[in-house]
Amino acid sequence: METQDIAFIFNTFSFLVNGILVMLMAAGFCMLEAGMVRTKSVATICTKNIVLYSLAGILYFLIGYNLMYSGVDGGFIGTFSPFDVVDPLVETSEGGYAGASDWFFQMVFVATAASIVSGAVAERVKLWSFLLIVVVLTAIIYPIQGSWTWGAGWLSEIGFSDFAGSTIVHSVGGWCALAGCIVLGSRTGKYSKEGKVNPMQASALPLATLGTFLLWFGWFGFNGGSQLALGSVADASSMARIFCNTNLAAAGGVIVALILSQVLYKKVDLTFVLNGALGGLVSITAEPLAPTFLSAILIGGVGGALVVFCIPLLDKLKIDDVVGAIPVHLVCGIWGTLAVPFTNTDAKFSSQIIGILAIGAFVLITSFILWYSVKAVFGIRLSEEEEKVGADNSEIGLSSYPEFIK
Amino acid sequence: METQDIAFIFNTFSFLVNGILVMLMAAGFCMLEAGMVRTKSVATICTKNIVLYSLAGILYFLIGYNLMYSGVDGGFIGTFSPFDVVDPLVETSEGGYAGASDWFFQMVFVATAASIVSGAVAERVKLWSFLLIVVVLTAIIYPIQGSWTWGAGWLSEIGFSDFAGSTIVHSVGGWCALAGCIVLGSRTGKYSKEGKVNPMQASALPLATLGTFLLWFGWFGFNGGSQLALGSVADASSMARIFCNTNLAAAGGVIVALILSQVLYKKVDLTFVLNGALGGLVSITAEPLAPTFLSAILIGGVGGALVVFCIPLLDKLKIDDVVGAIPVHLVCGIWGTLAVPFTNTDAKFSSQIIGILAIGAFVLITSFILWYSVKAVFGIRLSEEEEKVGADNSEIGLSSYPEFIK
Amino acid sequence: METQDIAFIFNTFSFLVNGILVMLMAAGFCMLEAGMVRTKSVATICTKNIVLYSLAGILYFLIGYNLMYSGVDGGFIGTFSPFDVVDPLVETSEGGYAGASDWFFQMVFVATAASIVSGAVAERVKLWSFLLIVVVLTAIIYPIQGSWTWGAGWLSEIGFSDFAGSTIVHSVGGWCALAGCIVLGSRTGKYSKEGKVNPMQASALPLATLGTFLLWFGWFGFNGGSQLALGSVADASSMARIFCNTNLAAAGGVIVALILSQVLYKKVDLTFVLNGALGGLVSITAEPLAPTFLSAILIGGVGGALVVFCIPLLDKLKIDDVVGAIPVHLVCGIWGTLAVPFTNTDAKFSSQIIGILAIGAFVLITSFILWYSVKAVFGIRLSEEEEKVGADNSEIGLSSYPEFIK
Repeated sequence: METQDIAFIFNTFSFLVNGILVMLMAAGFCMLEAGMVRTKSVATICTKNIVLYSLAGILYFLIGYNLMYSGVDGGFIGTFSPFDVVDPLVETSEGGYAGASDWFFQMVFVATAASIVSGAVAERVKLWSFLLIVVVLTAIIYPIQGSWTWGAGWLSEIGFSDFAGSTIVHSVGGWCALAGCIVLGSRTGKYSKEGKVNPMQASALPLATLGTFLLWFGWFGFNGGSQLALGSVADASSMARIFCNTNLAAAGGVIVALILSQVLYKKVDLTFVLNGALGGLVSITAEPLAPTFLSAILIGGVGGALVVFCIPLLDKLKIDDVVGAIPVHLVCGIWGTLAVPFTNTDAKFSSQIIGILAIGAFVLITSFILWYSVKAVFGIRLSEEEEKVGADNSEIGLSSYPEFIK
Repeated sequence: METQDIAFIFNTFSFLVNGILVMLMAAGFCMLEAGMVRTKSVATICTKNIVLYSLAGILYFLIGYNLMYSGVDGGFIGTFSPFDVVDPLVETSEGGYAGASDWFFQMVFVATAASIVSGAVAERVKLWSFLLIVVVLTAIIYPIQGSWTWGAGWLSEIGFSDFAGSTIVHSVGGWCALAGCIVLGSRTGKYSKEGKVNPMQASALPLATLGTFLLWFGWFGFNGGSQLALGSVADASSMARIFCNTNLAAAGGVIVALILSQVLYKKVDLTFVLNGALGGLVSITAEPLAPTFLSAILIGGVGGALVVFCIPLLDKLKIDDVVGAIPVHLVCGIWGTLAVPFTNTDAKFSSQIIGILAIGAFVLITSFILWYSVKAVFGIRLSEEEEKVGADNSEIGLSSYPEFIK
Repeated sequence: METQDIAFIFNTFSFLVNGILVMLMAAGFCMLEAGMVRTKSVATICTKNIVLYSLAGILYFLIGYNLMYSGVDGGFIGTFSPFDVVDPLVETSEGGYAGASDWFFQMVFVATAASIVSGAVAERVKLWSFLLIVVVLTAIIYPIQGSWTWGAGWLSEIGFSDFAGSTIVHSVGGWCALAGCIVLGSRTGKYSKEGKVNPMQASALPLATLGTFLLWFGWFGFNGGSQLALGSVADASSMARIFCNTNLAAAGGVIVALILSQVLYKKVDLTFVLNGALGGLVSITAEPLAPTFLSAILIGGVGGALVVFCIPLLDKLKIDDVVGAIPVHLVCGIWGTLAVPFTNTDAKFSSQIIGILAIGAFVLITSFILWYSVKAVFGIRLSEEEEKVGADNSEIGLSSYPEFIK
């Protein structure tokens, strides 16, 4: 067999295997969020998560993929050519992999960005308005900013480096979530007028833990698959390093969050530990290849610390992020992107900062416009009564655990 | 390395990786069903699912594999040569893959067919009688009809086309489930004498959602692995297309079920959405390779619609299918098989109809005989008292959630 | 492409794919244990499981890997050279695989050994003391005994054969768990003074079932990846046999445990069935390659029987093993190791017995010293009051299911 054919099969199979790992992250987000909300919102959050994954796939096919990858050429946006993404029947092997496998791998990334939003705005957003936000995020906002770097647009030309998407995927979800939380306001009763924070406890911690493990598992595909190739000794070696660093960064985040929560609060807080793992994972995502094992632990550990400090900070700002998505995906996304030049000598801090700011500004502004527009036209928030009885009752009409609670 | 050796490794590894994805579908079915039944039947349904997966493997080794693949030669049945399936120590590489890897991949399919039945007949069937049904289904019924197409039997000769088993796996489970539901009757109290349907709510919707995600995840292996090879550029490209189409069909099923449940019932029903995903997946299973992406969405979307319309229809017929297995696996299985000629020009409607009818008649008739025989000899239904206290109490002796409910 | 390069990619990718399957076993143990403990200990067991997985990775990097693999040369211990494990940037392809991929695969095995302990000692051990035990187990105890066989130490020289670690991984966890259970004592109220056993019911059987399925799924990587190569026809064929035998042994364990629990107790006990699967899996782990399919079923079946008989036996000895870890991992680990010579003619009973005894003595003694030392210095057991309110309340400060139970 020709070398290029062997490489083609390896590359394609890598996209597929790593891609389904990322697909399973949708289940991870769903379980994390289903465990973290109160029981009256569980069926709703499950609905949102399976629907947003479905919408992301369809819209990335209809519109997003071309916006992101077709004819960007150093610019700010690709082509708008609906339905014309990949013709799986005529694709050739010129790129070194099956076009459909690349599409698949990129598609699951879009879904990840959307998943991040659902957790933050849970328990008070209207289902259909949220889904409309997802449509615009996955069809337009994500692909446009994605084209700047991964579509060979202007950010790639100035050397912005974001290996698997600390900024391009995670902070994008985080910015959109932040805009949503601000426009929506907090859950009724979360913050008292005296400034007191009323804890609204997670309904099922084992599900949240399962979700975190599934996300961790899927992240090997997220970062490892972003090597974009497996068909050479160098690529396989790189993927191996990425797997190790990804794992060690998550471990670093766990241990730091564990220790800090004990030191600061005198008890270990499992939700901090879980978010510490995720914070470590987001932090290493911008550069999972270059760091030594020790550096990966440190990068992830800083992520874990950021999570522990930022979750209460958000509460002080009265931003009600139900699952901690903003600390995990936005704050650690920024941190991870800033940290790239520490270990990757090809990256420059200036380019990293430009990328973070440009993508941040674009996504935050378009997200605000989006959330306000949907608010003005359709409304985005459940009525007080609907929120009180819970979205499961008002929007889904099913109780998640009908025999456990009234 | 020789081309044939490289292909051998790829093909074998594909069977193994895709095979374990299908194995995980057993967990998916288990979680789906554990979430959909009432709490008093949860431990029982978990027991059934792990036992049926085990039985399927052992019986396919003891009897089924040879019945399905050995010496069919255009006929109706293979050889009965127990224990003589695969000798992993003497197998050669002549087939282009390790014989054991092929056996593994085929074995997990048998388990899928059996899993379909357990959900439909849940909450009132006797454990040991159900397991006896599984024994006959996996050792005899499934392999015989499977031999007709995949074993190079008579249906393959007339050109019946069922890529990954919309009919051969899913409708087979569906027909056996239908027979079981009819012979068993509905759960006590499900249908009032006035014809009213008393909803019996799912006990844990997040588990049902998790199960659906696991099934979706596993389906990449189910359809992708059914390419039966990875060792060439063409095979890898085909597998990539299959992954994309599988995903988009499921997404189409989700979106259609979502919209229809809102339009028809004024609320989104999560159980319809979940079954919409599964309906989309079953629908694309007969031909996941030939369709364009858009066709895949449409084929899956029709599946989602069929699910939404058929679930209430079954209730009108007083057929109590606890998890919606018959609409998902039987109805969408037929639809997917009928739809093959729309995108695959090698398939003919006439052959498809013959295959659907032949397999349907064979499985429905043998299943009825089987269910009635077991009923006559051992009884198949819990006593009224046992059903009232729940199978967990009467047959397992454990409460699934002892601290949550009394 | 050169043959050695192709083999390198296959071998590396095999380590990575099989390695993440083993990583998911951490989630499997977590769900199994979260389902098996009472609700007041669920968040704590989740915390322990994600933290121990993290600790195992970091400590195996800091210390363990070199102790196990570097410069053992027929001896009893490797080198102590902290931080100097793998430099992923300078590794070469000389070993036929990426060094980082091998490290990754070995690392997830350490975590498995530690996971086994957490379930056995659940509900009464102090969180931080338990984590300290994990540190010593994963950094020192596990790697030293591991070096004897897998690091080319003295046991490998006498021909001790333990393919994937029935003894080296599973019994090690089991011995440490046994020491812990003895030093800790049983949960308050578990055994009455009259010798009566008070059942303390599992809080969520579907989670325990999910955990078992995830462990089964991950075990394909555990045993299959232990072939340590995929880059030849022979290796691929071996991996295929291993997958089949692993599955059939688990199935054998399930069926035997099912039947025995019905015969002995007149009801099917789901927890026996789940542990039967795990017992079958541990039993085949010492030699998953050589057995015929039928032998694999029998080896696993014996494991299932051992589980059913040993769980009540432990209760008679008043050893309170919350999840059945000692019967599953220690007893079946010994059985599986003893059974190797039945199917693998290269193995000798004498060597197997020496290996079992040497590792058992070393781990049991060092574990006793460890548990007693931690007890003396920090204390290992929750106070009576803390145990009564539950570790979730006293150590974590979160209720696992705050809306379900008071």
